Amino acid sequence: MTLPSTPCLMLDLDALDRNVARMADHARAHGLALRPHAKTHKSRAIAALQAKAGASGICCATLYEVEQLAGAARSILLTSPIVTADKFARIAALLSDGIDLAMVVDHPAVLPPLAEALPAGGRLRLLVDVDPGSGRTGVGIPADAVALAQAIRAEPRFVYGGIQFYCGSEQHIVALAERRAAIAARNVRLAETIAALDAAGLAPLVVTGGGTGTHGIDADAGLLTELQCGSYILMDQDYGACELGGAAPFEQALTLHATVVSASHPGFVTLDAGTKAIATDAGAPRVLAGAPADCRYRFKGDEFGWIDLPAGSPAPPIGTRVVLMPSHCDPTVNLHGVYHLLRGGEPAGMWTAEARGYGGHP
Amino acid sequence: MTLPSTPCLMLDLDALDRNVARMADHARAHGLALRPHAKTHKSRAIAALQAKAGASGICCATLYEVEQLAGAARSILLTSPIVTADKFARIAALLSDGIDLAMVVDHPAVLPPLAEALPAGGRLRLLVDVDPGSGRTGVGIPADAVALAQAIRAEPRFVYGGIQFYCGSEQHIVALAERRAAIAARNVRLAETIAALDAAGLAPLVVTGGGTGTHGIDADAGLLTELQCGSYILMDQDYGACELGGAAPFEQALTLHATVVSASHPGFVTLDAGTKAIATDAGAPRVLAGAPADCRYRFKGDEFGWIDLPAGSPAPPIGTRVVLMPSHCDPTVNLHGVYHLLRGGEPAGMWTAEARGYGGHP
Repeated sequence: MTLPSTPCLMLDLDALDRNVARMADHARAHGLALRPHAKTHKSRAIAALQAKAGASGICCATLYEVEQLAGAARSILLTSPIVTADKFARIAALLSDGIDLAMVVDHPAVLPPLAEALPAGGRLRLLVDVDPGSGRTGVGIPADAVALAQAIRAEPRFVYGGIQFYCGSEQHIVALAERRAAIAARNVRLAETIAALDAAGLAPLVVTGGGTGTHGIDADAGLLTELQCGSYILMDQDYGACELGGAAPFEQALTLHATVVSASHPGFVTLDAGTKAIATDAGAPRVLAGAPADCRYRFKGDEFGWIDLPAGSPAPPIGTRVVLMPSHCDPTVNLHGVYHLLRGGEPAGMWTAEARGYGGHP
Repeated sequence: MTLPSTPCLMLDLDALDRNVARMADHARAHGLALRPHAKTHKSRAIAALQAKAGASGICCATLYEVEQLAGAARSILLTSPIVTADKFARIAALLSDGIDLAMVVDHPAVLPPLAEALPAGGRLRLLVDVDPGSGRTGVGIPADAVALAQAIRAEPRFVYGGIQFYCGSEQHIVALAERRAAIAARNVRLAETIAALDAAGLAPLVVTGGGTGTHGIDADAGLLTELQCGSYILMDQDYGACELGGAAPFEQALTLHATVVSASHPGFVTLDAGTKAIATDAGAPRVLAGAPADCRYRFKGDEFGWIDLPAGSPAPPIGTRVVLMPSHCDPTVNLHGVYHLLRGGEPAGMWTAEARGYGGHP
């Protein structure tokens, strides 16, 4: 069996398939639409798998993701506000190409120039982005949501598509009960916003949000109509540490393979994978195989990492392949752009993350 | 003037040209070869600029960089040890293609399988990697350097090319006097290693090392024959904070442009650039333009960042373009893969970082 050159991302297709099916089953069982977030994988092949399992479409975080993944999903929701003329023109081009596209807005100032940029007869679905209290994007109070929805309705080139309510940081709260309490607190604002829209004759057809960490909690709460979960397909150390609940937990489908390239010191060896191969924002990856079970990875610059060995452990020799579990899958995928596939534990080709990076748009 | 869609890297070609010329002049004035490290830029266009200014070749940190940049430089030194058969085969293919390639080794165990993999009649230049004491790669004691050089000499398919001595962490010591003292302490081992090799009839023709932070110190010390500096061409906040010394300091040639996409709260606004657009390992980027001078950037997830505004400052409106100075240029370039060029302050096309990522080698 020939494994690819390291450092490389390995994707276990059997685990991926099971993860895709489990979230699809969960959404179906709760009468929710599933629109998986493609910012996790950035890949046409994975978007197509999700569509085959019944996804209503995908979410994208960037316009480049939309452009690269268009056609691999039934419809696309752009979950980040777009506010400048250069990107309005790219949106217009996508509509002219017949892409079924919706996007979020969080300020009325963008509506006139956006409408102006659209093709004659083109109609763009807009969702009001509602800030759950994290302050990243979204309108802060129900009255602003109502005003924005009214402004969308007033422009014939727009279709008012509903609202987005995404609780980002809550996804990663480790204890399930604490996560549930945090979402319940956030959902007060969501319920108030929906009530205000209802009262104004603007009941949202779609209420989209949620993530891997809250997929069960969101289903129980009954406010969302659509789940945006992304990381469940790959999983990572961060979500692996969360009590996600549910009878069939998601599996670690993504690993990073590295090689021991130097072993001249007692107590540690050097791997060929550093900060250019493994995203650092959620801490160090976990060592799964190829080195003693209780050893630890440490970042040692852009190109290298250390494996600290427990006292008395023999060092894995130069050339040893070490398997790591990335701490945060999304940005780690973005560093590689290539998935090396395993099926039944055997190499099974490659997939590309076509939407890695931002492209070049002069 | 139409600027590219954000987030994007902007490269000021005028500053780049001056940086390239300044380091070339420095090396020439001190009788040193200059072999700039291409891990910084990963770009054929920039490697070609450095060659035109007299570089003896380039350094690469990964085999994929060698493969992508081959032909854009006279010769290439691979500065990381390569230890597995899959990569030996790729080295052999490069030699068969006539690429002038050298690489470092730090353990005699790799020599027999490496020799075995080389094409008949192919001769590969090998340099002994000497650990300056950082423990990342390299032989630890002079006797091991001598033994490894002897083993290289003993194999007809290898050419003994000298030694590498790269002090990585010392590059970033802020105070010049402290950095000088740290290098002087490291250089004791280098001098001992050179003396041991001399005594064994293995005087190194090439002693390669150094970086942007120590280029002046290394020239003064007189032990290196070749400088590997990389970041000087782009610069970043980290090196900008270092007292580099020298009459003509290097200029910040690389910036990241982002856009204010949400501004619903007092005290901060949200940008469209987060951890997928800006490397986090050296901290937050500095705000150069588009927002009050004393405001600060904060990472807010993969897709977003905040600009914290000083008390009483008006918020830059939605759509405002904000210019940031990346804290660490190498991994930030790796996130984008595209340089948008400025000449005389005007847009001047794009360059690609062809060697971004690791490629796909099944």
